[in-house]
Amino acid sequence: MGDFGSSPIAPYCAPMAVLIDVTEHPESWVNGLRENLPGFEIVVGPYNGPSDEIEYVVAWDVNIDRLRTYPNLKGLLLTMAGYDRIEVKALAPIPVVRLVDPAMADDIAQYVLSWVIHFSRGFDIFASAQSDRTWVSEPPIRFPSDVTVGVLGAGAIGKVVLATCEYHGFNTIGWSRSSHDRSMTSFFEASDFVVNLVPLSPATESLVGANELERLGNGIIINVGRGRTVDQTALIEALKGDLRWAVLDVFEVEPLPHDSELWELPNVTITPHDAGRTNPLTAAAVVATSIREIESGRRPANTIET
Amino acid sequence: MGDFGSSPIAPYCAPMAVLIDVTEHPESWVNGLRENLPGFEIVVGPYNGPSDEIEYVVAWDVNIDRLRTYPNLKGLLLTMAGYDRIEVKALAPIPVVRLVDPAMADDIAQYVLSWVIHFSRGFDIFASAQSDRTWVSEPPIRFPSDVTVGVLGAGAIGKVVLATCEYHGFNTIGWSRSSHDRSMTSFFEASDFVVNLVPLSPATESLVGANELERLGNGIIINVGRGRTVDQTALIEALKGDLRWAVLDVFEVEPLPHDSELWELPNVTITPHDAGRTNPLTAAAVVATSIREIESGRRPANTIET
Repeated sequence: MGDFGSSPIAPYCAPMAVLIDVTEHPESWVNGLRENLPGFEIVVGPYNGPSDEIEYVVAWDVNIDRLRTYPNLKGLLLTMAGYDRIEVKALAPIPVVRLVDPAMADDIAQYVLSWVIHFSRGFDIFASAQSDRTWVSEPPIRFPSDVTVGVLGAGAIGKVVLATCEYHGFNTIGWSRSSHDRSMTSFFEASDFVVNLVPLSPATESLVGANELERLGNGIIINVGRGRTVDQTALIEALKGDLRWAVLDVFEVEPLPHDSELWELPNVTITPHDAGRTNPLTAAAVVATSIREIESGRRPANTIET
Repeated sequence: MGDFGSSPIAPYCAPMAVLIDVTEHPESWVNGLRENLPGFEIVVGPYNGPSDEIEYVVAWDVNIDRLRTYPNLKGLLLTMAGYDRIEVKALAPIPVVRLVDPAMADDIAQYVLSWVIHFSRGFDIFASAQSDRTWVSEPPIRFPSDVTVGVLGAGAIGKVVLATCEYHGFNTIGWSRSSHDRSMTSFFEASDFVVNLVPLSPATESLVGANELERLGNGIIINVGRGRTVDQTALIEALKGDLRWAVLDVFEVEPLPHDSELWELPNVTITPHDAGRTNPLTAAAVVATSIREIESGRRPANTIET
């Protein structure tokens, strides 16, 4: 039997702390990280304790100046996939890791799927008929096999959107700048729906302009990527012309300003950057994996290049 | 080598004819049946040829008196699953076969899924905020695992609806009169969405009444079964009370009369009996199988009991 009664005196260690600085569901994050990171202290922001205890910060909105006051910071774990608002270089060489949670891709795919079904089945036509007390006796009949969903920016999330639409019988085309089988304008021409998932960079700003939207004809654009990858002025013109509808979750400026014309165009659906929601139940496990990777000297999979 | 040059004189046979009497996509039906029933003549209604040539009628709206003028009629193949408008007994012993096309169940499931995603993600809340130019900064966050979809009438179509919602992570409960693990009121209480798929019969008329709708609380009812299985007066009262929304594809009287109050309730979505659309591409093969079964002396799977 072991000598359980005596044990060496533990050397004093400052607890390794993970600071969670999120506004939504902090308690779910705490529970999820406690479960997935035994041995770490989990603290919730705003944090006023000793700055040398913070080794990891899990956050959505990032204050770089504050992060620099943590001398032992080993990693910044973002709770979202997009990172265009973060000055990654300012933290180098500390790794900044995007959240790539497969569950979030499913969330975006469901958002897209519901609108693809909605418009391909003419629910917008029924809604407009309803306001006139009109029964649409010969609805336009389009089955999924009659409809093509194009996904612009076919990365990890785009692939899940494509697979989800395919699973339900829709035709699909993926197009990305690095990999495509046709020109971007032909891609717009061949699609009934274009789902934009292009990440924002200097090369993708206003990537979708008047020419592409014209090729989409009376199709539908669903923007769940970044607002500035679509030329908003050209989009408004197209919506006043042939374009049937735009479902917009992202905008050049967010929140969408009160005086934006988009609010009241009759063929626009506005959602408040909510298509890909972070679910702490699944995301905490992904973040914990990244922290364990850094602890063991590895570079987490979705570290942002600087 | 065989003697291809000589062949016996074929005895005279009246062509066996299948009459297609549908208003939508008759050409797709003709093509589908020609492909699946070689050897049959396929004719399109209205039919004025010799009445003794018609052996099978494929139809949606059925005129029993006219069918009785076809002395060689062997079967009536309906192009829909519901049959409450058909006097099946009047044709006995000629089999009347409902269309049970797995693709139609998928069509209903997609209709349901799109509305389940729509309301569980608060798209109705975003739409109402949009009309006030309001960005919803803290949207209600409900993930599929937080939502329970109850399917009332868990037959062949109900099972596909349940499976589709489960596939996307929603909790599901099925309830049918013949098979259930709880009372009908507890079923309503446990559901966030109730999808009604109960077939209409004297026993199911107004099956869903004020009591059930009260138990649904501020949930959502989606009626894709038959209008008369839900007490429409009680439904209107519930919609003026706690019930969050009703998505209605079927009504006590169809088309929904112009003066119905349902048209203008702010929390009602009306679609014109379009949730389960018959797709001739897949349905023609199902109908052809039933015809071949009758030809070989068997009783097709979905023959209606008389």
